[in-house]
Amino acid sequence: MGLGQKTSFQSKVAIVGARGYSGIELARLLLDHPHAALTHCFATKNDWKISDFIDHSLADSVAISSMNEIEKIAPTLDTVFLATPAEVSMELAQGFLKMGVNVIDLSGAFRLPLETFEKAYGMKHTATALLSEADFGILPWAGPLRRSKPQLIANPGCYATSVFMALIPLLAKGAIREETLVIDSKSGASGGGKKAAENLLFTEVEGECLPYKVGKHQHLPEIIHHVRALTGTTIDPMFTTHLLPVNRGIISGIYARLAFSFGTGPDAQTKIAALFQEAYSSYPLVTSGPVSPRMMSLKRVVGTARSSISFSVEGDKLYVFSTLDNLMKGAASQAVENFNRLLDLPLASGLISTKGNT
Amino acid sequence: MGLGQKTSFQSKVAIVGARGYSGIELARLLLDHPHAALTHCFATKNDWKISDFIDHSLADSVAISSMNEIEKIAPTLDTVFLATPAEVSMELAQGFLKMGVNVIDLSGAFRLPLETFEKAYGMKHTATALLSEADFGILPWAGPLRRSKPQLIANPGCYATSVFMALIPLLAKGAIREETLVIDSKSGASGGGKKAAENLLFTEVEGECLPYKVGKHQHLPEIIHHVRALTGTTIDPMFTTHLLPVNRGIISGIYARLAFSFGTGPDAQTKIAALFQEAYSSYPLVTSGPVSPRMMSLKRVVGTARSSISFSVEGDKLYVFSTLDNLMKGAASQAVENFNRLLDLPLASGLISTKGNT
Amino acid sequence: MGLGQKTSFQSKVAIVGARGYSGIELARLLLDHPHAALTHCFATKNDWKISDFIDHSLADSVAISSMNEIEKIAPTLDTVFLATPAEVSMELAQGFLKMGVNVIDLSGAFRLPLETFEKAYGMKHTATALLSEADFGILPWAGPLRRSKPQLIANPGCYATSVFMALIPLLAKGAIREETLVIDSKSGASGGGKKAAENLLFTEVEGECLPYKVGKHQHLPEIIHHVRALTGTTIDPMFTTHLLPVNRGIISGIYARLAFSFGTGPDAQTKIAALFQEAYSSYPLVTSGPVSPRMMSLKRVVGTARSSISFSVEGDKLYVFSTLDNLMKGAASQAVENFNRLLDLPLASGLISTKGNT
Amino acid sequence: MGLGQKTSFQSKVAIVGARGYSGIELARLLLDHPHAALTHCFATKNDWKISDFIDHSLADSVAISSMNEIEKIAPTLDTVFLATPAEVSMELAQGFLKMGVNVIDLSGAFRLPLETFEKAYGMKHTATALLSEADFGILPWAGPLRRSKPQLIANPGCYATSVFMALIPLLAKGAIREETLVIDSKSGASGGGKKAAENLLFTEVEGECLPYKVGKHQHLPEIIHHVRALTGTTIDPMFTTHLLPVNRGIISGIYARLAFSFGTGPDAQTKIAALFQEAYSSYPLVTSGPVSPRMMSLKRVVGTARSSISFSVEGDKLYVFSTLDNLMKGAASQAVENFNRLLDLPLASGLISTKGNT
Repeated sequence: MGLGQKTSFQSKVAIVGARGYSGIELARLLLDHPHAALTHCFATKNDWKISDFIDHSLADSVAISSMNEIEKIAPTLDTVFLATPAEVSMELAQGFLKMGVNVIDLSGAFRLPLETFEKAYGMKHTATALLSEADFGILPWAGPLRRSKPQLIANPGCYATSVFMALIPLLAKGAIREETLVIDSKSGASGGGKKAAENLLFTEVEGECLPYKVGKHQHLPEIIHHVRALTGTTIDPMFTTHLLPVNRGIISGIYARLAFSFGTGPDAQTKIAALFQEAYSSYPLVTSGPVSPRMMSLKRVVGTARSSISFSVEGDKLYVFSTLDNLMKGAASQAVENFNRLLDLPLASGLISTKGNT
Repeated sequence: MGLGQKTSFQSKVAIVGARGYSGIELARLLLDHPHAALTHCFATKNDWKISDFIDHSLADSVAISSMNEIEKIAPTLDTVFLATPAEVSMELAQGFLKMGVNVIDLSGAFRLPLETFEKAYGMKHTATALLSEADFGILPWAGPLRRSKPQLIANPGCYATSVFMALIPLLAKGAIREETLVIDSKSGASGGGKKAAENLLFTEVEGECLPYKVGKHQHLPEIIHHVRALTGTTIDPMFTTHLLPVNRGIISGIYARLAFSFGTGPDAQTKIAALFQEAYSSYPLVTSGPVSPRMMSLKRVVGTARSSISFSVEGDKLYVFSTLDNLMKGAASQAVENFNRLLDLPLASGLISTKGNT
Repeated sequence: MGLGQKTSFQSKVAIVGARGYSGIELARLLLDHPHAALTHCFATKNDWKISDFIDHSLADSVAISSMNEIEKIAPTLDTVFLATPAEVSMELAQGFLKMGVNVIDLSGAFRLPLETFEKAYGMKHTATALLSEADFGILPWAGPLRRSKPQLIANPGCYATSVFMALIPLLAKGAIREETLVIDSKSGASGGGKKAAENLLFTEVEGECLPYKVGKHQHLPEIIHHVRALTGTTIDPMFTTHLLPVNRGIISGIYARLAFSFGTGPDAQTKIAALFQEAYSSYPLVTSGPVSPRMMSLKRVVGTARSSISFSVEGDKLYVFSTLDNLMKGAASQAVENFNRLLDLPLASGLISTKGNT
Repeated sequence: MGLGQKTSFQSKVAIVGARGYSGIELARLLLDHPHAALTHCFATKNDWKISDFIDHSLADSVAISSMNEIEKIAPTLDTVFLATPAEVSMELAQGFLKMGVNVIDLSGAFRLPLETFEKAYGMKHTATALLSEADFGILPWAGPLRRSKPQLIANPGCYATSVFMALIPLLAKGAIREETLVIDSKSGASGGGKKAAENLLFTEVEGECLPYKVGKHQHLPEIIHHVRALTGTTIDPMFTTHLLPVNRGIISGIYARLAFSFGTGPDAQTKIAALFQEAYSSYPLVTSGPVSPRMMSLKRVVGTARSSISFSVEGDKLYVFSTLDNLMKGAASQAVENFNRLLDLPLASGLISTKGNT
């Protein structure tokens, strides 16, 4: 397939790791996408059907294939989504690219420079040759794709995305004193994946709000690296992640002191409001505004492709909350935004209901 | 140790499978028990300490031992609690008994006749010789122990216990038409154990009240068999089990039409009230009374050794609710009641606070 | 408005009690409905906007009006949805009907004969004249509307709907011995409404599965009355309702012995499967099949207009589980089905995604 | 009563506001306290009994009295606990004190200087004369009580306590650069009290982790004021509070850069460990140590009088987590510590099981 010039065309797509939580959301989005034809779902388990998880008239038309059928089927695809662990993505990406298949990888395999990756993930990188050509698909901030094919797009991490959505506009305008930056993120348990693990059992998660990987989460180097790449600013924030007794949704509390040039109090708050309005004026997937239950609610973004950015200024203190659905903007729907980039479609294609807009 | 004549003595006890949810509750109870000295906890994992789970001044005095040290340590013990799967209990029980150690088994291994067991559990029984000598420890209903040692006591199942507590008094007095009996039980997720399993993940359990093993739960034959043994009545109830998005607690709804001799309406309700009062008049671990939030609340029994039985009569319809903590009366605290039987102590020893009773 | 012959027409609709949980779901559905134009939302509170709860491009076009503006605005409407308590619905319905506005009432005000209502709801009926003309809108079972206008449609209760969906096909075919029928229903907390009440606080609901109105829920006479009206069968089931620590969703366990003519075991199960298949062959909003996690999951129906009916036969015992979203099929989406009846549209219009069906 | 010299004596105590969540926990603790005799519980509602909420052999010996019986009963009391809103505490405290009754107030009424109080609570102070004599009972940090009677003790706020437990030792030793301090606190919903409110409904709290009073919580001035009073350090931290979908428990994330004198990395971590060890060496109600699931778990402190302080150093970044039960150390058990101060008892009297310590 060419890169999307013929939009009536349906691009043939597949998902590897389709039975996981992000994989299922991807399947749901792609089944509904006007320019995608989901033909295959690959998974290590074979005893399942899409309709076990999704009601859709096309659900049973998708083939469930085993991982060792990938090689045979790959040539029939335009784009593949890898909803797999980093070690599997590193193993598979090259093969797809060689067969001319665009790769949108939802793992952390291609988001970081080699050395940073190996330290953050505690593993050897086994596809280093691809690191330089991977595009980091944080949207709407990622630049244009190189006009060559096939493409390798690294879909950003869930926590990192929630931070980027708030931080990139702020840092691009020099709004905060970056040495005062502290980020406290909380995620629903689906962020831990569907693989059985004692610490993700209902009985363990319920009643808790447990911090984990304190100061050491692998999304911290992702944040630092790409904030520098996108805004030229070097940051070194404190960063904590918590596991919420909630199914889906991330809320990141982003705390910093305002830059002196922004002043303080209500005037500064007005400037911050304008800054976010402007940053997202042509991007329909972010809502910004002062803090309010509506703006800080996880349930208002869960199931949607939207992020919400809310803020409050007290003196020189800036409180920002960024919410999103970890399985959507934090994974599957941002992957579909990247798919839309490949096809030169508007980023939000297939992600916003058009009902009622007529 | 003799069978409890010298109550100032501390009986040496150990737990096999101590790191599971029931095992930890057992450890908590035994550390506090005036006549128990918990010396060893056996588990397949070794990288843990009692104090990871329990704050207790004696927690770090308990040895954490691997399963292959059992043989060496067994001779030093008076009683062992098996908080293990049925297959492990079948493997271990004989060895302990031969070394003169009493066994209180929390699994389903010794609760049923051979044929019934093999059908209900879908496995071969590997210690059939022990089936005839196992005592079924449903309390306060179990009879006196044979005065020989060592003893093998089968601790009843959690759902089955919740049903027995309501049903045995009713059937003993012929209060219901048994052919109308329907039981709908709901359990907190800790009933599924601590072993990682996809269906017990927070993200799977949250938001659901999922029936499972519909009409086929292995506690149904346990209920049928021991109801007949204890009351002489043959029943064949409908029985469903559900997984609640709750950590601990079982509530069983027990529905039947009253026997004609009981009449209907308020008069019948008075008779039912009297029946339960009388049944449990000398047993402090059951509270009975008409339905009310207090009487039907899981949180009121969770963390305690108590059961609560509540009832309502509408015409000839009898609604009974039986609540208990699946890890306590449904497992660990009933095991301690059985330990108290071994020592000829009151059943509730070590299970009811004596504070405030002075 | 005529009764829907011109389907390109948009019917002007309003919601009274729009800020409650069912009201908001109704607003969401009506904003998206191709043949509805939602113009007004009436509520006792005025300090809110639709966009506090729903993201929709038309959300801010809907007027939020106070209850005392009803009289002024009613003449501009074709149909009004009353998502109000029974006492308010009784007060308002007559006025709307007199002004020629169709009324779809989501309360219990018009579902029962006078005497039964007053006993079940513990209140005087203040609009008795309307009782005889109210249509009971259980779908797909309700008969054709009388061809006169305006119409008063009583939308069925949430629990009652979950029971009807399973019971009407069974009783229509004489599949069960009705004297053995027991119904155990469990509902998410949104069924209790949005009005602040101590027993619905998070801290009260969490950790519990509390039965309430044991044997006395007002949906029991609704079930008995309309089962008789629709199938000619008189039933007198045991019926319990529980409050789940879950936001949305109802699961009703429906337990009975099979009629002798149905036989037992696998053969009987096949007959039951066929019975449900046939009953719903031309109605896309019910899925039926043998019990499975997929079929009994609340999360699979929450947010949808669908019901799921699953069943298992053991000997002569029939276990049926009926699931639905209490705010959708149990309230708002069934109200939209009734709206579709008014307009002679297919029942599922506006309730099933047509994406992916092309 | 004298101030506790005769410890065999039982001090006569009452609770005002006894039916709320903190009130009930207080009742539970006082019923078990060896030197307390709980004689009366005052509440606005009268249709309840202690045994609705607590199983205790003495539960039904406590009189439930209406608020207008206070004047009559007060003279019989030694100490009263006010588990009431600030406006009620301001109204009642003076009367009790005049009758010679010690007052331990759990509200915010007497924690702050006049001006700070009125700004933080948005209300007039109606008992200003008492402000200068109120003792701020943060333990173990509060100094000796003045040896005069009766005493007015202001029990600290729940969030504030969680912060003090971590911050006082740190600031007392100059461990952090206070200008970098950020505090992100999360609380279970019982912190919102038992009064029905829409935002505390199960359906609203579930699925969320909602920030509230962002930067404006009334515990922030309490923290600032008493940190200065106790350590001489002036701080101006960023502070956020969140509502967790959890019943009980607070976790405060306390983030700051280490003072230069503390160095960085592992050496600094050792110093921080020593600092907390030393601070709490003679106080049994705090456990401190490096971050771990055990140390950061809410469920490990819920139901206990303990706080847990855990920490991690990365470079010059100090992450500290402070957990406690908002109804215990954050309210009722700290109030009992203050009661123990009144009686010259060890602070932990009646708060730590002595079982197993023999």
